[in-house]
Amino acid sequence: MAGQQRTYGRRTLLAAIRKSSPIARIDLAEATGISRATVTTVTAELMRAGLIAEVAQESDNSGRGRPRVDLKIDGTAHLIAGIKVANRALSLVLIDFEGNEQAAVEFPFPEQVFKPIALAQILKGGLTELMAKVDRSVSDLSGVGIGISGIVDVQRGLVHWSPSLSERNVHLRTVVEDTLNVPVFLDNDANLVAMAEKQFGVGRQAKDFIVVTVESGVGMGIVIDHNIYRGTRGCGAEFGHTKVHLDGALCRCGQRGCLEAYVADYALLREAQLLGNGGEAGTPEQTIETLLKRAQDGDPIATNIVNRAGRMFALGLANIVNIFDPQLIILAGERMQFDHLYAEEVLDSIKSSIVQVDQSPPDVVIHKWDALMWAKGAAAYALEGVEEAAVAQLTAQDV
Amino acid sequence: MAGQQRTYGRRTLLAAIRKSSPIARIDLAEATGISRATVTTVTAELMRAGLIAEVAQESDNSGRGRPRVDLKIDGTAHLIAGIKVANRALSLVLIDFEGNEQAAVEFPFPEQVFKPIALAQILKGGLTELMAKVDRSVSDLSGVGIGISGIVDVQRGLVHWSPSLSERNVHLRTVVEDTLNVPVFLDNDANLVAMAEKQFGVGRQAKDFIVVTVESGVGMGIVIDHNIYRGTRGCGAEFGHTKVHLDGALCRCGQRGCLEAYVADYALLREAQLLGNGGEAGTPEQTIETLLKRAQDGDPIATNIVNRAGRMFALGLANIVNIFDPQLIILAGERMQFDHLYAEEVLDSIKSSIVQVDQSPPDVVIHKWDALMWAKGAAAYALEGVEEAAVAQLTAQDV
Repeated sequence: MAGQQRTYGRRTLLAAIRKSSPIARIDLAEATGISRATVTTVTAELMRAGLIAEVAQESDNSGRGRPRVDLKIDGTAHLIAGIKVANRALSLVLIDFEGNEQAAVEFPFPEQVFKPIALAQILKGGLTELMAKVDRSVSDLSGVGIGISGIVDVQRGLVHWSPSLSERNVHLRTVVEDTLNVPVFLDNDANLVAMAEKQFGVGRQAKDFIVVTVESGVGMGIVIDHNIYRGTRGCGAEFGHTKVHLDGALCRCGQRGCLEAYVADYALLREAQLLGNGGEAGTPEQTIETLLKRAQDGDPIATNIVNRAGRMFALGLANIVNIFDPQLIILAGERMQFDHLYAEEVLDSIKSSIVQVDQSPPDVVIHKWDALMWAKGAAAYALEGVEEAAVAQLTAQDV
Repeated sequence: MAGQQRTYGRRTLLAAIRKSSPIARIDLAEATGISRATVTTVTAELMRAGLIAEVAQESDNSGRGRPRVDLKIDGTAHLIAGIKVANRALSLVLIDFEGNEQAAVEFPFPEQVFKPIALAQILKGGLTELMAKVDRSVSDLSGVGIGISGIVDVQRGLVHWSPSLSERNVHLRTVVEDTLNVPVFLDNDANLVAMAEKQFGVGRQAKDFIVVTVESGVGMGIVIDHNIYRGTRGCGAEFGHTKVHLDGALCRCGQRGCLEAYVADYALLREAQLLGNGGEAGTPEQTIETLLKRAQDGDPIATNIVNRAGRMFALGLANIVNIFDPQLIILAGERMQFDHLYAEEVLDSIKSSIVQVDQSPPDVVIHKWDALMWAKGAAAYALEGVEEAAVAQLTAQDV
């Protein structure tokens, strides 16, 4: 068996064990189409490398006969952390190599925007606290996944722009790796929601799906054939900056007519300020809250503002359906504030703007995550990277 | 070697031979990472199946020593036809299993819209004429690829809607297969341009690219990781029906604000009719020609009409870049009529509407095909299907 096929066998068997754990060798051969002899060789090797372990199962026939031995991922092989860098908050989760949660912490930030090195220090502090919960230290980690808002070039570990960073074009992966001395897996947070949905959520059944996140910006994660699609220059899936109006409203990116400039909180704020606030001065959050409240109470101008946001959001989503024709669209976001975008009328409005064929439109599922689930997506992403590195190490030993 | 791996080996080796023909067995092992022993076994099997052939090469050292034997695809293994069903014209091309063109014919239609069975009869007539050129008959074909405008569900061989058909939801693949008695591979014509670009054109170097076609409608083909992406329900890549204006211009699909409703010929016609035609009555084509001529001559209203079409087209393309971040966008179309959409200002306008990062925007290439190249794309698509079927037949014999 040549090198490529051997690597293919290791990857395929690890994935199959992860999917159906615990599983007997004979069922692995059945599930993967790999010969029993190769399954025996490769699983022995994976076991020597400490990536999988045997578990004795009760034998089928009432305890008689030789006990059946199944294989499972060895959870103790690696510890992996996931971090979600949110607006004024940090969420961290620790998982083992099986994907089981070991610990979690969340804490608020005093600030919103950081210098890269300062952010790396904060992440280190958070990870130290996380690891202390299981009496371990940061150096015991095999990988750290980080999700951050903005435009991220995954290949280069480069953040073109993020609302959490004071600088553009930051090689954040390197900065954090230098601080932690642990491999770092960095991605846009919308991609990590897609990863979490793919591994733990409603995306497990779907081959092709789209995740749309609404927080202060509008993000998107694209899963095609079970993989996250990232584009060529690391700046695809910029759903929030697709244009829904020629020469339209000004966006914080500096261009005009972006979807975000109609549906994000700053877009609502811009219009809400024209309305006045009933005499009370307030924070931006309060102004938006008042706007949404007034719309609920039937105030015609507030309703007009909120409805346009919803209709523009629906138009943007219909465009995604017309381009990708996915099985499933998951609307994810952690704030209740955006309920108006998830209203029944918005979902109906999507249906009337997609190409009509004799089949049902894709399912649209609303899924509100807490921040820890986003962190778990980051951990799942790092887990993939750690597994890939472990297989690569075996391949290197072949030579 | 178990079944899946054996099929993987056959596919991989056929693809490698197709890519680098003629190629020696030892170089195949090098190029694919498959062991020399497996290369020997599998290529012997492919040769017995008649899919590949040996070619004697001059030996490297001045004619001395044993002559080197290379492998190539056996062109005589299969004959495959490709058809482009255009507006009032049919183009057909015949290729061999190596992809070499053997014959081609083109002829006009009297009609534009057909009943499915009538179209199948016309295709049969065209193929009979094509095969007569090489003294063969339709029954000698191993596959026929057909490209047709409209919304096509490839999986089901179903045409949801086409400007060439008088009915909706036609199982056109079955209708044509029943008439020809030859396997049929049916797809949207924009996908087949993508296929032709992938196999013969500028797409050969790019892993991810987008083809946009402008004829009477606006079509799109998406290539991700060297494969055509077709969506879940067979109605993705409907670029022409992405919405560029909330409650905008009426489209022939019945919805409002579709890109097509701003850039297609009927959209220009609608506005040109308001302008008047200088007293002369004319066909729609003449009216549009006059409009474009007037715009070139600097008439302000005509320029206004044509410019908006260009800017809307640029906005739509920028949205595609913001979503897919492809390496390359190919603008394809057979008519010179749409030159205004390919103008320098349009391309500049794309650049100013995409997300700005520290890397160059994707290349935009303008590529005008003649109809025969579209037919060649259809043939290339059928060639893939015929090769896939040949490998599947070998797999079936394994059991």
